Amino acid sequence: MSQPPISFARGAPAPELVPAAELAECAYAVAQRDGARVFAYGPGGGYGPLREWIAGQHDVGPERVVLTVGGLQGFVFYAAEQLARTPGRVLVEAPTYDRPLKILGRDGAEVVALEMDEEGLDPDALDAELRSRSERPSFLYTIPTFQNPTGSTLSADRRRRLAELVRSRRLPVLEDDPYGLVRFEGDPLPSVFELEGGVDVMYSSSFSKTIAPGLRVGYAIVPAALASELEDLVASTYITPALLSQATVYEFLRRGLFEANLERVRGLLRARRDAMLEALDRELDGRARWNRPEGGYFLWLELPDGTDAAELLARATEGGVTFVPGVDFGGQPNSMRLAFSFVSPAEIDEGVRRLARLLAATPAAV
Amino acid sequence: MSQPPISFARGAPAPELVPAAELAECAYAVAQRDGARVFAYGPGGGYGPLREWIAGQHDVGPERVVLTVGGLQGFVFYAAEQLARTPGRVLVEAPTYDRPLKILGRDGAEVVALEMDEEGLDPDALDAELRSRSERPSFLYTIPTFQNPTGSTLSADRRRRLAELVRSRRLPVLEDDPYGLVRFEGDPLPSVFELEGGVDVMYSSSFSKTIAPGLRVGYAIVPAALASELEDLVASTYITPALLSQATVYEFLRRGLFEANLERVRGLLRARRDAMLEALDRELDGRARWNRPEGGYFLWLELPDGTDAAELLARATEGGVTFVPGVDFGGQPNSMRLAFSFVSPAEIDEGVRRLARLLAATPAAV
Repeated sequence: MSQPPISFARGAPAPELVPAAELAECAYAVAQRDGARVFAYGPGGGYGPLREWIAGQHDVGPERVVLTVGGLQGFVFYAAEQLARTPGRVLVEAPTYDRPLKILGRDGAEVVALEMDEEGLDPDALDAELRSRSERPSFLYTIPTFQNPTGSTLSADRRRRLAELVRSRRLPVLEDDPYGLVRFEGDPLPSVFELEGGVDVMYSSSFSKTIAPGLRVGYAIVPAALASELEDLVASTYITPALLSQATVYEFLRRGLFEANLERVRGLLRARRDAMLEALDRELDGRARWNRPEGGYFLWLELPDGTDAAELLARATEGGVTFVPGVDFGGQPNSMRLAFSFVSPAEIDEGVRRLARLLAATPAAV
Repeated sequence: MSQPPISFARGAPAPELVPAAELAECAYAVAQRDGARVFAYGPGGGYGPLREWIAGQHDVGPERVVLTVGGLQGFVFYAAEQLARTPGRVLVEAPTYDRPLKILGRDGAEVVALEMDEEGLDPDALDAELRSRSERPSFLYTIPTFQNPTGSTLSADRRRRLAELVRSRRLPVLEDDPYGLVRFEGDPLPSVFELEGGVDVMYSSSFSKTIAPGLRVGYAIVPAALASELEDLVASTYITPALLSQATVYEFLRRGLFEANLERVRGLLRARRDAMLEALDRELDGRARWNRPEGGYFLWLELPDGTDAAELLARATEGGVTFVPGVDFGGQPNSMRLAFSFVSPAEIDEGVRRLARLLAATPAAV
């Protein structure tokens, strides 16, 4: 094929999702108005007015808000701090976001992966794991809403049970929630952070999915007992994060552009999710299984047992479509992550057609 | 005293050194023109056009330029990578910049501090250290030009000898050079990186002192053998750095504003350095020793033996002036770092007067 492959691999927003012209105006306004602050060193926790705005949203003091260079940087800081405080195993979902797995590998942590089902992480399985060993784990990493990579969401009942368990066990948790606001339908669920009270749960999110990823504005609501040490760690890593993009995000919020943009983003992503589900229903009914996420960037597809998604990918690239095999996230060999965020509805339709064609050409599983 | 103390502690530029209005124009122009790229995920090494510009300055391929969130972040990445490759002791100058010392402590590294004299690091002392142990060190960290904290500069002859030694020993080196361009007088010296050829020397610098620190645009010229691994490490830390401020720096360069701004910055800092030297000559002649740096932000002052700078600081703060005691950088108890970068020439004059007054009230050393 001569055309570039259609990417179900890229977990990034399509260019039209990003409000570039409005951001340019915001950057200009805030740099003119607040240049002395924006272009100087500042606190390790980032641009003050944005910290205050986020603190208000989450009903905490601004000293508990740490703005990071994207959300992943928050994971890096938290993992370093938490592994130093409480060395031990790190509990993650199976499958989970691949970059944290790589970081934990670099940190030399023992990783214990907990199987999920359709409702997400199973609190009973977590409880059993905690009872199985006398040493406390260092922390639990969870993405309860529109998870990367599966798109699955922890049910309301399980959130309450998880919060209970965390509270009774004093289990440190990093709740990563970059996709929560990108909900197309259904009612929002309370975060584990809210249910637990934020004593042992650190909540992290970012503006990558709601405004623009290149701004690299992530944030964490840090447990009070961790806040000053985490800001110290930040200061002796990069002193101050890049303030201009944090100030630009603040200006975007201050002008009241956030809600309308979020509605626009939700609509554009919903159309993509719908296009993918329609094409899958049409092309792969009975030949694979997948979920129907109510938001986010991803869905999770399982091929018949014995079909190797990584092997399929090698041919798929030639066949004009790409995706990420589930094994990259610690998932089963027959699974794959399909991102509907980056390509257009028409490309999604065509991409699923290509995927179906490739699957049809795949020898039946032994 | 009711007025705030005059700060010889802050190693930051005075607000008037920062070209905030021009930066606002540059941010706007580049965000409008290049928004799709600036607000999207990009390479771990940063904004392409700026990488290419820096690569041209240093005569390397752009894949060897890694833009970081300020210069210190480059140290963090290099130390992590180098300590993983070649575990062992890290050689530093005594005294040296305090933040890297803190980072090395966090990394669990053994730190060996090499005494400096007026000409900087002594290559013979380095050679003797290398011969004294059979294990290779992990790396050497050096700030050869207008060093933080001492303001001292490695002589041309010693640079050549250091480069020779590095070449013959294949000693990994991080040459940190944030102040090199901020030279008020005298001829620029070649970097160790240039003299050695950039095989085992990583060169790092930033635009914090030449444009604005809050932009957080640092960069490293990475040895070819390290480039792809370092960019991998970056990508699994924050995926992409904040691109808007990197693009703003690029636009500032593209418009030809850099040289004129640098001249302006040099002039403002030269006036501050001169004010400090004049005041010291007038107020402290015979009662302390200090150097006369040809550039940078700092000078180094030594009190009579037995005088404790940390103890003086406690009283100095009340007395309306602050500085950083030398011990914070691994220096002697009677030494201190005086930054002339942040306050005005008039404040510098008054601050030195206050320092002299305090010193006069100090009991003679035992």
